[in-house]
Amino acid sequence: MELNVYLAGEIHTDWRDAIIAACGGLGIEWSGPVTDHAASDDCGVEIFGAEANKFWHDRKGALLNAVRTRTALERCDVLVVCFGEKYKQWNAAFDAGYAAALGKPIIVLHAPEHDHALKEVDAAANAVARTPDEVARALRYVTAAKL
Amino acid sequence: MELNVYLAGEIHTDWRDAIIAACGGLGIEWSGPVTDHAASDDCGVEIFGAEANKFWHDRKGALLNAVRTRTALERCDVLVVCFGEKYKQWNAAFDAGYAAALGKPIIVLHAPEHDHALKEVDAAANAVARTPDEVARALRYVTAAKL
Amino acid sequence: MELNVYLAGEIHTDWRDAIIAACGGLGIEWSGPVTDHAASDDCGVEIFGAEANKFWHDRKGALLNAVRTRTALERCDVLVVCFGEKYKQWNAAFDAGYAAALGKPIIVLHAPEHDHALKEVDAAANAVARTPDEVARALRYVTAAKL
Amino acid sequence: MELNVYLAGEIHTDWRDAIIAACGGLGIEWSGPVTDHAASDDCGVEIFGAEANKFWHDRKGALLNAVRTRTALERCDVLVVCFGEKYKQWNAAFDAGYAAALGKPIIVLHAPEHDHALKEVDAAANAVARTPDEVARALRYVTAAKL
Amino acid sequence: MELNVYLAGEIHTDWRDAIIAACGGLGIEWSGPVTDHAASDDCGVEIFGAEANKFWHDRKGALLNAVRTRTALERCDVLVVCFGEKYKQWNAAFDAGYAAALGKPIIVLHAPEHDHALKEVDAAANAVARTPDEVARALRYVTAAKL
Amino acid sequence: MELNVYLAGEIHTDWRDAIIAACGGLGIEWSGPVTDHAASDDCGVEIFGAEANKFWHDRKGALLNAVRTRTALERCDVLVVCFGEKYKQWNAAFDAGYAAALGKPIIVLHAPEHDHALKEVDAAANAVARTPDEVARALRYVTAAKL
Amino acid sequence: MELNVYLAGEIHTDWRDAIIAACGGLGIEWSGPVTDHAASDDCGVEIFGAEANKFWHDRKGALLNAVRTRTALERCDVLVVCFGEKYKQWNAAFDAGYAAALGKPIIVLHAPEHDHALKEVDAAANAVARTPDEVARALRYVTAAKL
Amino acid sequence: MELNVYLAGEIHTDWRDAIIAACGGLGIEWSGPVTDHAASDDCGVEIFGAEANKFWHDRKGALLNAVRTRTALERCDVLVVCFGEKYKQWNAAFDAGYAAALGKPIIVLHAPEHDHALKEVDAAANAVARTPDEVARALRYVTAAKL
Repeated sequence: MELNVYLAGEIHTDWRDAIIAACGGLGIEWSGPVTDHAASDDCGVEIFGAEANKFWHDRKGALLNAVRTRTALERCDVLVVCFGEKYKQWNAAFDAGYAAALGKPIIVLHAPEHDHALKEVDAAANAVARTPDEVARALRYVTAAKL
Repeated sequence: MELNVYLAGEIHTDWRDAIIAACGGLGIEWSGPVTDHAASDDCGVEIFGAEANKFWHDRKGALLNAVRTRTALERCDVLVVCFGEKYKQWNAAFDAGYAAALGKPIIVLHAPEHDHALKEVDAAANAVARTPDEVARALRYVTAAKL
Repeated sequence: MELNVYLAGEIHTDWRDAIIAACGGLGIEWSGPVTDHAASDDCGVEIFGAEANKFWHDRKGALLNAVRTRTALERCDVLVVCFGEKYKQWNAAFDAGYAAALGKPIIVLHAPEHDHALKEVDAAANAVARTPDEVARALRYVTAAKL
Repeated sequence: MELNVYLAGEIHTDWRDAIIAACGGLGIEWSGPVTDHAASDDCGVEIFGAEANKFWHDRKGALLNAVRTRTALERCDVLVVCFGEKYKQWNAAFDAGYAAALGKPIIVLHAPEHDHALKEVDAAANAVARTPDEVARALRYVTAAKL
Repeated sequence: MELNVYLAGEIHTDWRDAIIAACGGLGIEWSGPVTDHAASDDCGVEIFGAEANKFWHDRKGALLNAVRTRTALERCDVLVVCFGEKYKQWNAAFDAGYAAALGKPIIVLHAPEHDHALKEVDAAANAVARTPDEVARALRYVTAAKL
Repeated sequence: MELNVYLAGEIHTDWRDAIIAACGGLGIEWSGPVTDHAASDDCGVEIFGAEANKFWHDRKGALLNAVRTRTALERCDVLVVCFGEKYKQWNAAFDAGYAAALGKPIIVLHAPEHDHALKEVDAAANAVARTPDEVARALRYVTAAKL
Repeated sequence: MELNVYLAGEIHTDWRDAIIAACGGLGIEWSGPVTDHAASDDCGVEIFGAEANKFWHDRKGALLNAVRTRTALERCDVLVVCFGEKYKQWNAAFDAGYAAALGKPIIVLHAPEHDHALKEVDAAANAVARTPDEVARALRYVTAAKL
Repeated sequence: MELNVYLAGEIHTDWRDAIIAACGGLGIEWSGPVTDHAASDDCGVEIFGAEANKFWHDRKGALLNAVRTRTALERCDVLVVCFGEKYKQWNAAFDAGYAAALGKPIIVLHAPEHDHALKEVDAAANAVARTPDEVARALRYVTAAKL
């Protein structure tokens, strides 16, 4: 079975690369947000012109990034969403909620210390993984139909 | 006409192989659940860690299997669902109900002795077959447009 | 919060009455299939004429009952589905699958001995109850917002 | 114009009461999650039995709470979501994503210090308010059609 | 159970009145097309101005009637569609197809002589009735839950 | 038949009042945008704070107005949209496109001089009226089922 | 622009061949019902066993044919439906209604003598053609973007 | 990321060519309306026969063009809509409303002088561009994931 997998969430560690490497040979098409942090923050004003107010600077960028993320989210078969150690990461939880409302299967990746805070997200998911390797093994099982 | 056909239901006899063999040469893409019974039961704990409680052992496996089955069910054009001689097979009936709500055409395969117990499922279906060969002939007619 | 709750599944014990009695005073509108077994089986031929073949006798009844059950299922906010001790009850599992595909919250009521056979249904549900009283307490919590 | 407004997000301050009080006389039906924190955390095990593992303790509660929150979210016309000063509040962002995917208008309530972290949520919203009074004035404008 | 029932099809006999009279006391809200034949044919030009070309005369009327019929079709819980003895009645079959695509339960009313010509419509229906009284008994069973 | 009718388009003449007056006694619930031009333009900054840049001043207002207009558009059964003599009125055409995509019946009200420029909008509509009285007569016919 | 065009309606003249021949070189994928009349009538009983009652003989066939026709209808971009000189052709009108509810563009092909009887179908269509050649020219214009 | 981009709006300047040229090498499939103005106006009567009344002349053309535009709009991932200096361009705003209701990301291209008149359209969009080059840079960023 072939899958389109969207990798949502934090963009400061290499968890995406680890999953993709561990899924070599499977029929998986990967998608995700722009992971160049500076480009992601400034794309709106770079292309459409500067804003005096940081609020609208951010708005222009977030709206442009949404063209990519919403399109990819709606296309994907499975959402993998990673909550890391730093920042608020409301963006990741927003994507998980969006995917849940679309009925997409979700695999959440996070450390046990966040279990209680993420209980609603986890309850909407098909699996809670602790490492990128667990995510990869799950995707291998789903696509290749064997352990 | 090309079709994606999902083969739902019992995983203890070779009815899937019989249908697939009898449909050789047709433009049919086949899908279905993981049919390795042990893998299907244990996938959750094998990948994400053991559970002391069998209830949650089963839950982890069922949720992971659902990533595959829901995706395939939503992609399919036709659901073929087989009710065999053994076990409760609530899973098969659940898949049939799921497919019915999505508006998928359904072909049910079962022996006449289950006619009364399956009357609601049959009433939601486009055909009730008694043998894999009847299923295959129906799929041949639908795709090749001739008897 | 007011709810429309559909009570699906077996029609041979008084579990529906037990839940309804225990939910007295809550803003719940109840719905469900026809629970007069004979009427449910024979409604089709009683109204539209006898059938020589039992298969079509059943079909006429099942199709007519579906006018009621599908309408009520699509209207409901929550599906409660009970799996009892007797019969195949594929009908109950079919309704659960149908409700799951519509995104309805599901509460499953069954004894622990069926846990393994119902693991896929349970995994699609928001709660697994062992007694009508547990179902009633859950509905009370959801509607009245307190334990 | 009458509205059903869902008040999502933090349950540790009285922002809900402030909005409701300021909207007196408007045709607004209010909904929201269970705001009794202890009940919300323990409802699952209180009703369906204790769990040795805190992860499943949380899961049972989160799934039961979702019966209420998903039903209310899908019924509402407008989502108001508040991000407070404490905790991760991934739950609030999840609800916002869920509502966004359903096409619900969203009003976000948060302090300016979270502007950058919430830029994707804000970009999916119809308004960003700083105080409950601003939310109330917006709802008054929308329903009463005058400033 | 309360139902909204749309009565589609021929407007030259009193089958609608017969069904409504026989359903006295049931919680049924009735809807249907304009049954004043002359008004139905001429409403477009009467209101919006005459047309030299009969084709556009008809178009104006059909489009205006569709405001009523589409709205009522989408609101209804059950479609009852009657095929009478005269005219082509493509309109009735069109409404049946429209309702089928919306997933509405359908009860078809027609004489046996049209069985073969209506086999596709009948196969999309939950019941085929021969008399208004059969339709009424079916609606009574569905709403009152007894024969 | 009762209807919810949304009156979209220009807010500088009294066409809404004329239609509503001429529909006295019919079961029509009326909805529409805020018609106080100044309030509509300034609501965003009045409630959420001033903007130095007129572009964002307008954005805040348009987003807040959309809470009302989108909600009302999605609730309505019929859209009546008026194109007047002045201004670009892209807003009216946008609402018509929005309603068309939702499958809402549309009645367009405009003078013949705009026929060619509005041909795509008219082609998506069920009727093209020249006066508020024609709109009212059409709504009377649809709801009262007689000319 | 590439299109999937479903050719619905009568199966006794060669209108399908005429359209397909006249569209040579365009990027059109054609679909349609089984046009072998005997196979279409008898497929159900040929594959799944004889029926004593012609009504159920027809039912089995119609349900099996619906696997093909519904799948193709839901896949198509455009429905072309032909009403010929003979028979009731309720099937064609049913397909048109089904396609209209799905929002598919429709081109109707029929002689002027049926204009009045088909006015509701025509009013739901994007074009009314009198000859297969007109249908082909329309499809050529739509796909090749020139007259 | 590959995208299907629909280029809606004015057909009198070469803005489409400018965007397409500036996006060379990206995985973008372009779609749009027929841009041959005369063909677009007269296609209906050219193919299906002349009309005495210009209103119906326009209607036949608009309905045929809608076969192309609606199909392309529903297929596209992103709508780019240009408002030029001339004409009413209600058609462009209608397409934007249609796309907005389908949840398509929208990029609007117009001069600052139309900011106020287009504020509702802009508020439904992900970006407001001033030049074809800005549109192209945005599409490059979305598809290539870098500035």
